[in-house]
Amino acid sequence: MKRLVCMLLCLAAFGMAEAQRLTSPDGGLSLDFHLSPDGVPVYSLRYKGKTVIGESRMGFRIAPDYEFDRGFEQTDVRFSETDSVWQPVWGQYRDIRDRHKEMCVALCQPSTGWLLNIRFRLFDDGLGFRYEFPVQKDLRNFTLKEEMTEFRLTGDHKAFWLPGDYDTNEYPTTTSRLSEVASLIDSVRTEPLAVRSFTPNLAVQTPLMLKSSDGLYINVHEAALVDYPAMQLNLDDKAFCLSAHLTPDKNGAKGFMQTGSVTPWRTVIVSDDARDILASNVILNLNEPCKLEDTSWIHPVKYVGVWWEYFTGQGSTWAYTANQDIKIGETDYSKEIPNGTHGANTAHVKEYIDFAAKHGFDAVLVEGWNEGWEANFAYVKERIYSFTKPYPDFDVEELHRYAAERGVKIIMHHETTSSVSDYERQMEDAFRFMADHGYDAVKTGYVGPIIPRSEHHDGQWMVNHYLRVVKTAARYKVMVNSHEAVRPTGLCRTYPNWIAQESARGTEFESFKGNRPDHTTILPFTRLMGGPMDYTPGIFEGDLSVYGSNKARLSTTLAKQLALYVTMHSPLQMAADLYTNYEKYPDAFQFIKDVATDWDDTYILEAEPGDYVTIARKAKGKNEWYVGGITDENAREAEIDLSFLPEGKRFQATIYADGKKADWRTAPKDYVISSRKVDGKTVLKQRLAPGGGVAVSIKEL
Amino acid sequence: MKRLVCMLLCLAAFGMAEAQRLTSPDGGLSLDFHLSPDGVPVYSLRYKGKTVIGESRMGFRIAPDYEFDRGFEQTDVRFSETDSVWQPVWGQYRDIRDRHKEMCVALCQPSTGWLLNIRFRLFDDGLGFRYEFPVQKDLRNFTLKEEMTEFRLTGDHKAFWLPGDYDTNEYPTTTSRLSEVASLIDSVRTEPLAVRSFTPNLAVQTPLMLKSSDGLYINVHEAALVDYPAMQLNLDDKAFCLSAHLTPDKNGAKGFMQTGSVTPWRTVIVSDDARDILASNVILNLNEPCKLEDTSWIHPVKYVGVWWEYFTGQGSTWAYTANQDIKIGETDYSKEIPNGTHGANTAHVKEYIDFAAKHGFDAVLVEGWNEGWEANFAYVKERIYSFTKPYPDFDVEELHRYAAERGVKIIMHHETTSSVSDYERQMEDAFRFMADHGYDAVKTGYVGPIIPRSEHHDGQWMVNHYLRVVKTAARYKVMVNSHEAVRPTGLCRTYPNWIAQESARGTEFESFKGNRPDHTTILPFTRLMGGPMDYTPGIFEGDLSVYGSNKARLSTTLAKQLALYVTMHSPLQMAADLYTNYEKYPDAFQFIKDVATDWDDTYILEAEPGDYVTIARKAKGKNEWYVGGITDENAREAEIDLSFLPEGKRFQATIYADGKKADWRTAPKDYVISSRKVDGKTVLKQRLAPGGGVAVSIKEL
Repeated sequence: MKRLVCMLLCLAAFGMAEAQRLTSPDGGLSLDFHLSPDGVPVYSLRYKGKTVIGESRMGFRIAPDYEFDRGFEQTDVRFSETDSVWQPVWGQYRDIRDRHKEMCVALCQPSTGWLLNIRFRLFDDGLGFRYEFPVQKDLRNFTLKEEMTEFRLTGDHKAFWLPGDYDTNEYPTTTSRLSEVASLIDSVRTEPLAVRSFTPNLAVQTPLMLKSSDGLYINVHEAALVDYPAMQLNLDDKAFCLSAHLTPDKNGAKGFMQTGSVTPWRTVIVSDDARDILASNVILNLNEPCKLEDTSWIHPVKYVGVWWEYFTGQGSTWAYTANQDIKIGETDYSKEIPNGTHGANTAHVKEYIDFAAKHGFDAVLVEGWNEGWEANFAYVKERIYSFTKPYPDFDVEELHRYAAERGVKIIMHHETTSSVSDYERQMEDAFRFMADHGYDAVKTGYVGPIIPRSEHHDGQWMVNHYLRVVKTAARYKVMVNSHEAVRPTGLCRTYPNWIAQESARGTEFESFKGNRPDHTTILPFTRLMGGPMDYTPGIFEGDLSVYGSNKARLSTTLAKQLALYVTMHSPLQMAADLYTNYEKYPDAFQFIKDVATDWDDTYILEAEPGDYVTIARKAKGKNEWYVGGITDENAREAEIDLSFLPEGKRFQATIYADGKKADWRTAPKDYVISSRKVDGKTVLKQRLAPGGGVAVSIKEL
Repeated sequence: MKRLVCMLLCLAAFGMAEAQRLTSPDGGLSLDFHLSPDGVPVYSLRYKGKTVIGESRMGFRIAPDYEFDRGFEQTDVRFSETDSVWQPVWGQYRDIRDRHKEMCVALCQPSTGWLLNIRFRLFDDGLGFRYEFPVQKDLRNFTLKEEMTEFRLTGDHKAFWLPGDYDTNEYPTTTSRLSEVASLIDSVRTEPLAVRSFTPNLAVQTPLMLKSSDGLYINVHEAALVDYPAMQLNLDDKAFCLSAHLTPDKNGAKGFMQTGSVTPWRTVIVSDDARDILASNVILNLNEPCKLEDTSWIHPVKYVGVWWEYFTGQGSTWAYTANQDIKIGETDYSKEIPNGTHGANTAHVKEYIDFAAKHGFDAVLVEGWNEGWEANFAYVKERIYSFTKPYPDFDVEELHRYAAERGVKIIMHHETTSSVSDYERQMEDAFRFMADHGYDAVKTGYVGPIIPRSEHHDGQWMVNHYLRVVKTAARYKVMVNSHEAVRPTGLCRTYPNWIAQESARGTEFESFKGNRPDHTTILPFTRLMGGPMDYTPGIFEGDLSVYGSNKARLSTTLAKQLALYVTMHSPLQMAADLYTNYEKYPDAFQFIKDVATDWDDTYILEAEPGDYVTIARKAKGKNEWYVGGITDENAREAEIDLSFLPEGKRFQATIYADGKKADWRTAPKDYVISSRKVDGKTVLKQRLAPGGGVAVSIKEL
């Protein structure tokens, strides 16, 4: 009967199956949709008259072998528009405008009676579209074999890409033409990472940043990834066509769906000015409004921590003993022999608390506080850690008291080593333990392959897990900073306690000689499109050989480390170096102490992916501005136009710049600090060294 | 260094690498062990001079490709013996004697430095041996590729077998020669079951019952299956050699091990008298003593329940609505339209409570009480049920009050539909909910394929899950009756709140026309070797066509249904039929009301697997005895020798026998009840109809 209704609807709607066009509010973007003669949904996107996405297919394959990407008829189409302003709990802007036009196309596949809606939203700076599976009679629970969405590009664009991989986003970014990906990808994939699961075919990850030969900047990603696998992009490097490649589970199933659900939004952000990409709020706007009733407990966090010492090669260890035969729940650690190198001991943590209190930091991260680090072998072992039992030399009660007296929080650490099934078993107790001991933030970690062993980091099961952690944390008023989780898609709007993520190659790779000077000029165009990153900048001592056998040197100057606090947006910012190094450079450290972590406004002053980024931001609720400018391996002159400053007022600018000899290879610590008066007419011209940067703080006089 | 020590030990021990022999306390069994010239561990077993197990290999393959089954040298061997008596919390015997001799062989593989111990225990009625992985320097966490244990039989024995399968024990048992398995197995595997995962090669399950041409009864199973996959048995039907085939995960990994651990015991129970197999306590004796400090809350349970009506075809449903689009956590059931057929409604459950109270039953099982049954699609859906939210028409508070007033418990039901990851998330809340509402027993269910989707019912991950449930339940003083879980291995000794399991083809298959008349004459020799079964006997109305369209008829007479309460040991026994049927046959029902569920002693009077079983038992702490005798499709005369009765006393026996016309096919309800005085010299000769049985209650005069 339902099938008949559908067919009748299809027939009734036959006259409607014309091509549909949607135009962005300012008219710059236009989206065309039609059904092909075979009933295949097809869309295309133009920007200022230029094709961005050529005619591209849409739809699904459903297991075991249903073609839900053709034979459709259009039964309805509805248009609407929105223009509203909302305020995030934290972010780059106090006010975010959501101005878009919407078109929702209702489709029916008469051969099955199945229904599918496609909803398009067109903003001035980009497109979002998603699929919707309405509740219907003949389709209910089904398994996705693949999403067939294409993004058909117009040429051999320059791409900033990571290899397609189901388990990690920690590859270095490669910059090449699309036609060069195939010849480069095998070499990139030799990168030693804790876990790698290559896509079987040629594919890259999102957010994918592209630049066309005629100067279009195009960013492809997704928004609101909920109960669905993350999307990789197959690359047809002859047709320059990208197509969705959903992360499967290890049995090959892509997604387990129930009707009455929607997919994430597929996003295409586009401009002829690279700065517009960084300024875009399309991804946040496509996410649902905040679902937490009370957000008063969510706040930006600037922190230090027992962390970098584990990477420097100086011998500090997460583990408390040398006994690798420990078994959580059986081993009595009070009877174990300490190894003498355990970093997270009470006395040492107190030093960090003292430093944090003295310099106005909110919190101290402590890794290695809990039982299990001796034998945290990824994958083979399921019960790795206790999340409620501290090591004998970590006095959780005393440290809570000591920190609270000094107005400092301790940040909890939940490294799971990807034994997620066991973490989920302990999770409620773990968060209760945190609430009982005054913690309001947790850093989670997912190093290594996932247990359950059917799952990948970026598959639907894990996507649900990460959000489950965030929701559980919210019940305990805990903020979450997830590392090695699926890359973000703007969900921090909906769950603003998801305060930051890693999900890319962070500063820790500097200790493995792993980051190139252009790395942080790319990340804002790729990883950061989905949300803030806990990049952990602020390393002043860039030559790790001072500590011991580690010969790594940072790929940046010290001044660039300061600039990252502005260019790498995050409400959670670490001063990652050993505190003793900050004590050696108190003048440079002053910038880290001063810089804000939450903003009223953001001004993208200069930007070219892979080359340079210069950003200014106004501190939230204060007449203070901070500027960060960075460059790649090439020196350049940054032009910092201060016209964003209020008219008719004078300001004091403190400029933390590369010194004359500064160079990331030879003189990274050559910096110079100067002061000058500025106003809205000032344009600072600031030389950046190779691998260098500049940081500026501006306060009202 | 350790490797050197090992080698030195090996050299020092060179003279010891002679064959070792262990003899059972009564001398009837002898076990030989030696290392082959290639250093392969080899054992063999003889019974009264006859070979039971010929020379059979032992050891492991370790991933990715280590041969840990050869190249061994013997470094030590130790002998010991035990003779002690222990008392189970419940069971077939008040006192159980554990009398065995033990030999532990320490092996070293000089090429790797790895150590392995093999511990043998020889009882008068059987052998147990297990592998032990001591804590050592060069082996710590490893993945089992296979266990190489062989059981080399002496000929083409008659076997009572289930096809090797990683996910179900619900096949009917096939009786054939080993050489016939290959030609029969494909047909058996067509059995429609909720989930089937065939072994890729020819294999059968344990407990495997065998009978040799020269009259030896041999049972192969395992004891104390903890943190290890269940063992299937590969069948080489030319050499008549069985070999271990551990249940893998879906990636092919067999077990994730850490040294400082042991495998389950491999058991071979053997006798020339079939009755000795049923009387054996080898498997219980090989399990660890009770680990629960307080067992006062554990008690036998005789129960009725809202259950059989779901199978009869009369239209009662687990589901509350017809809406299959429900989503747990989103759907507001109070707004759903009831389907009018929901079984677990308050009024109907009260009828069962009234019946239970009137007839002295301990408890009422209620299935279908909780949200989610409308759309419990196995596998595609992970969040299927709430385990804390009752349907709107199931008033949990009122029923708790109503039942408690009448001295009756309600048995909780946790059907997971094998969405185990979600069950584990809810488990703590679920058991707290039970404790808060007066439940002290739960029936768990695992219908369909497992989520996490890497796992099988019988793999290591699930083995750990089942025990996790039992341990969690114990914290809440809850007894567990697990259905569709891995078959038991005597763990009810260690965790006596694991009061019963299904793990075989139970009475529910009678409603699918699925059980043959010989079924329950085999189960005591196979499934029940590991522990009690919730077989749910007591169906008086064996013709389901009386309810509607279901044409199934039971494969037993009514008298045999009574006898099963004695022959199928379980401290948890259901009177499974609709209570209205018991009201029609109050005289026969009296036996179910009377029969004990816990025992001081057990007397196996007659037994031949596949043909007949006659068992008498003394009720725990009472001078009451109950006898059950059953036969297969052939009529026979049971000889019930009452010499177990105390001397010099007289007793009243009530005999529930097949009537003269009784036959499972034509007159299943023809029964006759008689009374007579008996004493220890009485031998009852009782005719059993085809598919029939006899039940006797004996009370002191």
